[in-house]
Formats: sequence, C-alpha cells, structure tokens
Amino acid sequence: MTAIHPVILCGGSGTRLWPRSRPARPKPFLDLLGGRTLFQRSLDRVGDLARFAPPLIVAGAAHVDAIEEQATMDGGARLLVEPAARNTAPAIALAAHSLAPEDIMLVCPSDHHIANEAAFLVGVERAARLAREDWLVAFGIAPTEPATGYGYIRIGEALDDGHRVARFVEKPDLATAQAFLASGDHVWNGGIFCMRAGAYLEELARHRPAMAASVGEAMADGENAGWQWRPKAAPFAAIAGESIDYAVMENTDRAAVVSANMGWSDIGSWDAVLAARTRDAEGNSTTGRAELVDCRNVLVESDGPRVSAIGLEDVVIVVDGDEVLVTTRAGAQAVGKLPGATGK
Amino acid sequence: MTAIHPVILCGGSGTRLWPRSRPARPKPFLDLLGGRTLFQRSLDRVGDLARFAPPLIVAGAAHVDAIEEQATMDGGARLLVEPAARNTAPAIALAAHSLAPEDIMLVCPSDHHIANEAAFLVGVERAARLAREDWLVAFGIAPTEPATGYGYIRIGEALDDGHRVARFVEKPDLATAQAFLASGDHVWNGGIFCMRAGAYLEELARHRPAMAASVGEAMADGENAGWQWRPKAAPFAAIAGESIDYAVMENTDRAAVVSANMGWSDIGSWDAVLAARTRDAEGNSTTGRAELVDCRNVLVESDGPRVSAIGLEDVVIVVDGDEVLVTTRAGAQAVGKLPGATGK
Repeated sequence: MTAIHPVILCGGSGTRLWPRSRPARPKPFLDLLGGRTLFQRSLDRVGDLARFAPPLIVAGAAHVDAIEEQATMDGGARLLVEPAARNTAPAIALAAHSLAPEDIMLVCPSDHHIANEAAFLVGVERAARLAREDWLVAFGIAPTEPATGYGYIRIGEALDDGHRVARFVEKPDLATAQAFLASGDHVWNGGIFCMRAGAYLEELARHRPAMAASVGEAMADGENAGWQWRPKAAPFAAIAGESIDYAVMENTDRAAVVSANMGWSDIGSWDAVLAARTRDAEGNSTTGRAELVDCRNVLVESDGPRVSAIGLEDVVIVVDGDEVLVTTRAGAQAVGKLPGATGK
Repeated sequence: MTAIHPVILCGGSGTRLWPRSRPARPKPFLDLLGGRTLFQRSLDRVGDLARFAPPLIVAGAAHVDAIEEQATMDGGARLLVEPAARNTAPAIALAAHSLAPEDIMLVCPSDHHIANEAAFLVGVERAARLAREDWLVAFGIAPTEPATGYGYIRIGEALDDGHRVARFVEKPDLATAQAFLASGDHVWNGGIFCMRAGAYLEELARHRPAMAASVGEAMADGENAGWQWRPKAAPFAAIAGESIDYAVMENTDRAAVVSANMGWSDIGSWDAVLAARTRDAEGNSTTGRAELVDCRNVLVESDGPRVSAIGLEDVVIVVDGDEVLVTTRAGAQAVGKLPGATGK
C-alpha cells in the first residue's frame, strides 16, 4: 500500500486562547497541553513512516519562523508558503499541485487535539481506502453537546468504509443543533479530509474553475528555497478565499464521511484546554509557578509570575507578559471578544 | 479645652494583604482605599488643629523612610523610633514619656479604616472627658458578626460618657463569639485608646514595673535627630513585648469603654478591602488597568499588567510584581498562610 501524504494546515489565530495566543504567536504554535505544541502534535500523529510520507506543511509567511523552530525538515518535510491567507480550499490546492495525481492526501488542521491516536489511525485507513475509490472524505466526530460553533454533516447511505454525505450544514442555531444531537445521524465536521490529489483538483476545477486556474498559475511560477516552495504571489492573492467545505465538499457528488471516536477537540477555548489536559485529583492543571489552595477544576498558565489561588472552582487563570486573564470556564467562550484579544 | 495628643502606632505587617503588603511595604503604607494610604488617613482623621495637637508617630526604624515619604513634619509632628518591636504597651509608654503627665493621649493604630469620621470624633470627645477623670478608655465597636479574630470587651456599669469595662476577652472560639453577639453587651476591642499620659505610666508602673522602668531608661538616654526621637536601644530591646490590653487594660480597675458606631474596619483581609472601597453598580472595584465582563463583587488591584476578568463573582485579583493572587472573598482569610505571604 502506498504511503499517505499528510498535509498540515497552519491556520487559526485562536483569539479565544488570548492572552497566550497573540497575532505573532497563534494557537498552533503554543504549548497548551504540555511538552509539544499543537502543531508538533499534528506532525507527531502522522510521523509513522510505515504509513505516512513526509508531511507537506502549508502556512503563511508570518509563521515560517515558528515552523522552522518547531519542525525538522530532515525527514523530507516540505513547506508551502501561502502568499496570502485565502482559506482552506486554495491552501489544499497548493498541496495537491505539489503531489502526483494518484497520491492520497490527508489534510489535517494543526490546531486541534486528538486524544485517541489509535482510533484516528483506524479512521485514516478507512478514509484512505475510500479516497482510492475517488471519494472526497471528511472526518466526522460524534457530537457530545449541541454545539453551535461547528459545522455538521448528515450521514447518508452506507459505503464499505464509511458513509455518503447526505448534506453539510454550517454552524446551526441552538434548536437545530439540539435536533441534530437528538437525531443520531449528524456528526461534527472535524476539518480533517482525505482524498486523491488529482480528485481534489478535478472537483475544484469543476466547481471553482477560477480558483483552480489561479492556484495552478501560482504553482507554475513559484520558486524553490531550500525546503520551502513559494508560489507566485499575484495570482494567489487574486483568489477569493473560500473553505474546502463551501468550495468543494458541499458541491461534489463524491463526498463521503468516516466517523471516528478519536477524542477530538478543536481546543477552541481555555475550557477545552483544561478538558484536554492531564489533571490532578482535584481536577486542576498548572503550568508555571502556581500554588492552589482549596481549588477544583482550575487551570493556571503562567509565563513567569507565581499564581496563588484560593477557593476557586471551574476557573481559568492565564498570565502572559503584561496581560492577566481570569475567567470562569463558562465565560471562556467570551475571551475572544475582550479588548485585549481584539487588539485594543 | 486642651488639645488631644494623637499617638499613631505604625505596626501591623498585614500578611493577609499579600502580595500588596510585603515585609518592606507593610499594610499602613499601602494605598488600599484610593488616594491616601491607611497611615495617611490615620493622620488625616486627627488633623483638625482645633481639636488635636500635632501627632506623635511611633514606628520601627524600618518604616522611617515610608513615614517620611507619606507624612509631613511641618506641623510639629514628632516621630518616636522604636529600637525594637515590643508590641503596644512599651510603644505607647514611649509616647506617654514624651508628653506632660496631664496631656490626653489618643492612641490610634495606623492600619484600620474608619468610614464615619464624625462618629469617631464624637467618641473621641467622650473618651477624652473620661480620660481627664483618669479613666483608661478603650473604644468599643458594635459587633456585626461572630468574629473570632478580635478581642471583645464586656460592657459594665454606665458612666457619664461611656461604661466601665466588665472584662476583656481575647479572641474567642466561634461558639463564644456567637454568644457574645447574642448577648448584646459585648463589643469588639477596636485597638483605639484614650488616657492621660501620666495615668497610663502610673498604671504601667503598677502592673508592669520592669517594663515601665526600661521604657523610662530608654527615653532618658535617647537622642534627638530632627523630628525623630531615638530612645536608647539596649533597655528597650530588653523588654518582654506585651500588648496594652494584657499589660495594662486587663489589670487596671480604671478601664472604661466608649462605644462608637463609626464604620470601623481593621482592613484585615482583601474581603474587608473590597467592603471598604467605593464600588460600581455591580459591586466591583478596580485599581490599575482592568476589563470586567459579567463580574459582580470583584476587586482587581494591578500594579501594571492589564487584568481581564469574565463571569466572576465575589473574587479578588491582585497583581503585584512577580506575584498574582486570585481568591474567593471567603478564601481571603487564608492569604496569610500562602507560601508567598510567609516568605517562601
């Protein structure tokens, strides 16, 4: 069986993880779970050379330094530098262009967490088998709550290794999300995709011909610099940015979904960070100097000052440079709207 | 009527107000309530020259710099430098020695808050009348809760301007405190005293003759330095430290108490700081840069970093140099036991 080509997308500013996430230091490059950043963990997950080819990393120029600090190119990894941020459909097309048409791509965000890697790998094998039959495969996550911040996929008729997609639904309102949860036939769209490189480009050309042409032009006139490939800026910058969901998945009649119970989290808030962390008997987790007295389910992140906490429950404390955040776990969703997080 | 001589005692480390209070910057010299420090407010309260003589300040050598920054000697204030910390009985004796025997002293801690100054001044007038009749007068505070951290005074038979003290009770257990609160005839010992200087020294000589002799010796051999008077160190350092309560008030048969409804607080914790502060409609109070979202009864104190808080209720956040404290108001009593507060 031929190796699968991981495509690691480095997007996601993560304003809800302010003040640790900042414009110059976005979410993928933060050590939020201990030891390895989300980006490094994304590489680690696809690091088994028996299954995977060296990764293709797709990122903006602003993040090249962070990537070169955190990743090694020794194993044959390549870096595709997006001339401008144009969402996932063009980014994935850059990667597809730099592979052979028959190569199987596994597209992975670099700012999510997957707790159960074995289940992930089983899902990848199933998705790859579907991709070899020219299905464009999304990964579905069994929903655990009526989340309104995710896209949903309605599962259609069964295939050998998954299901057809009945339809994609963008972020629903709460009543709709509750109905989806009750229905049992909707899954979250995890943002992970598997497809043949040529199949993706064919579907992109069918549904977004201008985008496909611009990406082709940008790649044809690009230049090589060490492990970096730099597509030409002007044609890429002219693209109207669009997600793979909108541009391709919702339009193709070859969309499939593989559901995997892999402990997925988009680490979308400090509450989710705490949930994904290793915790002590009281449910607390600390990074940096911290003294907790009579605290439960408390997350402390400090880049220097000592944090002393007494009597707190379900609270997150983040100290980062000249910013201190203290929020209830329930309030963590609102962090992205704070003046600090919006650059004020 | 002759002026009353304020004696301002600068003790009290205030470990429960860590990390704002530090060994080099104890509680009296902190701006906790906005605008003026507790020490400055203590001077302000007795600043009316129609009623009060210039103050006598009693403090350790470690605090002379802070006092000289925060007080002015222009009006005739004097500073008595304690050669060693020996509790209140010897400190007050130093002040009594530097006054004429007929002078009326008003002894005030410098780390308490009095919200109702008019009521305080009425109490002072009543206490001064009793002091002129050679009563040693304590100030009683009507208890509002069964506090176990204060001394109590049981009120005895009525005098023209107050009551005899039936007895002093040191910090009681909770059941006893509850009984005191229910009894209606117990008040908190506010640590404020009024007496004739000569009467105090006579009672001290009667009940603690060794202490009285040592203070006399230290004063006789002291030296003058500008507005400072420095008692001789050796005899003072040899004194066994004791509070005025233990050494004199509990032993004299001339103890009286004046009760005043003056909005007294010992500012004994961050919870008490919040209670004494001017607050907004949500009950919040902030010093320094702060952004509060959906917060109630939250105190923020920051010496620099911006503090952003979401969804908190009854929480105190203090940022001071390399220390960050986050505690529930109920937990604020335990701040003094934190490693940071105990110098670890």
